[in-house]
Amino acid sequence: MAQQDRAVRTRRAVLRAAAAVFAERGYAAATISEILKRAGVTKGALYFHFDSKAALAQGVLQEQLTPQYHLPRELKLQEWVDAGMTLARRLPREPFLLAGVRISADRPGRDVLGSAWPAWARLTSRVLTEAKKRGEVLPHVVPEETAQVFLGAWVGAQFVSQTLAGWADLDDRTAALYSHLLAAIAAPPVLTRIDTAPDRGARVIAEARRRSGDLAGIAC
Amino acid sequence: MAQQDRAVRTRRAVLRAAAAVFAERGYAAATISEILKRAGVTKGALYFHFDSKAALAQGVLQEQLTPQYHLPRELKLQEWVDAGMTLARRLPREPFLLAGVRISADRPGRDVLGSAWPAWARLTSRVLTEAKKRGEVLPHVVPEETAQVFLGAWVGAQFVSQTLAGWADLDDRTAALYSHLLAAIAAPPVLTRIDTAPDRGARVIAEARRRSGDLAGIAC
Repeated sequence: MAQQDRAVRTRRAVLRAAAAVFAERGYAAATISEILKRAGVTKGALYFHFDSKAALAQGVLQEQLTPQYHLPRELKLQEWVDAGMTLARRLPREPFLLAGVRISADRPGRDVLGSAWPAWARLTSRVLTEAKKRGEVLPHVVPEETAQVFLGAWVGAQFVSQTLAGWADLDDRTAALYSHLLAAIAAPPVLTRIDTAPDRGARVIAEARRRSGDLAGIAC
Repeated sequence: MAQQDRAVRTRRAVLRAAAAVFAERGYAAATISEILKRAGVTKGALYFHFDSKAALAQGVLQEQLTPQYHLPRELKLQEWVDAGMTLARRLPREPFLLAGVRISADRPGRDVLGSAWPAWARLTSRVLTEAKKRGEVLPHVVPEETAQVFLGAWVGAQFVSQTLAGWADLDDRTAALYSHLLAAIAAPPVLTRIDTAPDRGARVIAEARRRSGDLAGIAC
C-alpha cells in the first residue's frame, strides 16, 4: 500500500473512532487514549493528523457536512418538517451526526467548537417568515418565538429519545412534535396538507437519493 | 453547641455543598473531595452522615420535596400550566432543584437514583385526560402523546435556557412552550381563558404563600 493511502486510511480510522467515543462520552469525558485504543493506531500516527482533542472534534464535525436531502416543496412548512424528519431519521444511524449532537451538548465542546443550535433557530425562523408571507402561517405567529420553542423541544426530544429508548423512537417523537406545533401555527387549510407521518424522513431520504441517482444518470 | 445541633448543622452544610457541586458538574463528574472542600467539614464528619456519592445525591433529592404550590383552579389546563410555570420560576433559584435536574440528566445518576421524567409524563397525561373529560381539550387529542411531546420540550427548554442564558429566560421559554401546546390542544373557548404570561409562576407562588400564611393565621 502506498504511504499516502495508508495515511488516508489511518486518518479515517481515527475519525471513526473519535466519532464513536464522542458520541458515547461527550466532549469533556472523551480521552485521546480511548480514541487511540479504539482506532488501533499508534500515538505517533494519531498526532500526525490531529494535534489535540479539539482538532479531533473539529475533524468529526466536518465529516457530518453530508448532503442535507433538501427537496423544494409547494409548502414552506413541509420543507421545515422535512428538514427535521430527515435529520431524525439519520441521527441514530450516522455516528458522525451522533457525535455532533454530543459535542454540542457539552459545555467544553460547545465553547471550543460552537453548536448547531443557532443555525437551527435561524433556519426555522427564516422558513416560518417565508411561510407567513405566503399565508401558510396564522397572522399572530411570531417566527422567532416559534423557532425558539422548536429548538428547545427538538433538543429535548433527542435527549429524551436517546435516554429512554436508545434513539429508537426519535421518528415518532419528532413527528408528534411537528403535529403539535403545526396545529398551533399553521393556517387550517394548509394544516391538512402537511405530511408529518413518522416515516416521512425515510421517504424523503429515499426520494432525494433516487433523484440524485437520476441526475447522475443524466450527467453521464 | 450541643453535639446533636452540631451534627444537624454539619449534615445541612454537606447537603448544601453537595447540591451546589451536583448542580454544577452533574452526578458523574461530581467528587466527594470537592463536596468536602466546599462544605468545609472533615472527611470523618461527611462519612458519618453519607457513606457514598449515591447517598449524598439521595439526600439532595429528598431535600427538594418542598411544597408544590399547587392551587386548584376552575380549569384543569390552568393547573397544568401552573405546575410548569411555578417550577420554571423556582428552578433557577433553588440549588436543590437545580441539582435534581442535573442528577436526572446524567446517565449514572439516573441509573442509581431514577429520574423525575416519568412522574412529569404521568402528571401531564392525568391532567389532560381529566381536562378532556371536561371538554377543555379538543376531541382528537391523545393525552399520552401530548404528555411525551411536553416532556421532551420541557426538558429541552431547561437545557437550552441553562446553556444559552444561564437560566435567565426559563420563564419566557416555558410560557412560549405552553402557549404553543395549548393552541394545539385546547378547545377555543377555553384557550382565551388560560393565563400563560411569563410571570404566572411568580404570581402563583406568591398567592400560595399568602394563602398558607392565612391558614397559619387561622390555625393560631
